[in-house]
Amino acid sequence: MVLPPKDHPRYKSLLAREKLVDASEFVAKQGLIAHGRGEAFDYLLGEQTCLPALSAIKAASSALIEAKNPVISVNGNVVALAAREVARLSEISGAKVEVNLFHRTPERVAGLTKMMKKVGIDALGVNADDKIPGLSSERAKCCSDGIGSADVVLVPLEDGDRCEALVKMGKKVITIDLNPLSRTAQTAHITIVDELTRCLPLLSDFVKEKNGLDSFNNKQCLTDVLNYMAERISS
Amino acid sequence: MVLPPKDHPRYKSLLAREKLVDASEFVAKQGLIAHGRGEAFDYLLGEQTCLPALSAIKAASSALIEAKNPVISVNGNVVALAAREVARLSEISGAKVEVNLFHRTPERVAGLTKMMKKVGIDALGVNADDKIPGLSSERAKCCSDGIGSADVVLVPLEDGDRCEALVKMGKKVITIDLNPLSRTAQTAHITIVDELTRCLPLLSDFVKEKNGLDSFNNKQCLTDVLNYMAERISS
Repeated sequence: MVLPPKDHPRYKSLLAREKLVDASEFVAKQGLIAHGRGEAFDYLLGEQTCLPALSAIKAASSALIEAKNPVISVNGNVVALAAREVARLSEISGAKVEVNLFHRTPERVAGLTKMMKKVGIDALGVNADDKIPGLSSERAKCCSDGIGSADVVLVPLEDGDRCEALVKMGKKVITIDLNPLSRTAQTAHITIVDELTRCLPLLSDFVKEKNGLDSFNNKQCLTDVLNYMAERISS
Repeated sequence: MVLPPKDHPRYKSLLAREKLVDASEFVAKQGLIAHGRGEAFDYLLGEQTCLPALSAIKAASSALIEAKNPVISVNGNVVALAAREVARLSEISGAKVEVNLFHRTPERVAGLTKMMKKVGIDALGVNADDKIPGLSSERAKCCSDGIGSADVVLVPLEDGDRCEALVKMGKKVITIDLNPLSRTAQTAHITIVDELTRCLPLLSDFVKEKNGLDSFNNKQCLTDVLNYMAERISS
């Protein structure tokens, strides 16, 4: 990995990019493009957690605290960027971790499971014995003791179709997505419009402190984020 | 290449993504991420050529018509996405094409030169015998009968440092960049904030018709684009 200079004004953003390229054996090429889309929206956010996102993080904290079988669904980008942050949230919240991929191959599932093992997490995913209804074969696979039986699913950086399918299954879906206009952002119950490695530690802290927010309107939150971005662009 | 269904509302965007993934042997992984950033900004533009971009295309047309030694500098993303469009512009404007890479390897230069050859263009680049001052070794390489002696350089999807170095060499620099806030966009003399395969055919048509614009203010144009994006976001 080529580390960017620590004093670079965009150090964190460049580091994230290098992490992804470094793990590119297990990150889909489409995942690299998707990351770039996120970078652009984060740029518009000023690479900071905005106030509406903070509300969404608190609402997510409440949902995880109240959940009976919470699961964190991770893909290549999530593991490459935030394996440690996911591990900490899993430990604090008691949520299981499942490797669940849009561009699924046995090699990628095994490689990503190994990367989670390195940060102390026995992730589900290799033995996928269940299905998310309404999706085509490889994209539908999941684990019955993971996503299959979860009541709350935190699924960062998810595809729109799959997010919608999880909602239709009756799960409470929390997503993390830098594009407030994406179908995933619009479909999930709680959308955190923030960068992954920035919001996951906050979410872990809130769960630990039992700091939550029970009254939350996702549509309003997304509108607030869009207005915040628009104001930043025109200034 | 997995072709998206032709009736998909975002067909062109999905096709561009597949083209890049398909050519990924010669496209830098960082190039895939950069493409994603562009996608996000294009989304904010409504995937259409906005009026300020149209002015910039006309200004670019004037610059190419008046140039003595115009050169189109292409990288992996440009060749993967728009080899044919570049070839047509080169034929109409008389501009040479040079393969010039940020992440330069002899294999990538050779592969991209071959891809240009397939669309009828003998691109420069393999025998780089000149340097762009102020850049580190591999990033500085260029051809004396290409960029080295050019008076006008059209360099789409360029890195900020390299764009600045070309400006410092006294060249008139035209760029195509979907991010109006990027250093490249801010540094070039003429910045076309538009998607590559959408604006290159327009630019070729304008050059052919001798349709140009001599009075052009790049800073004002970028402000106009930002205001256009902000209006679209908040509506």
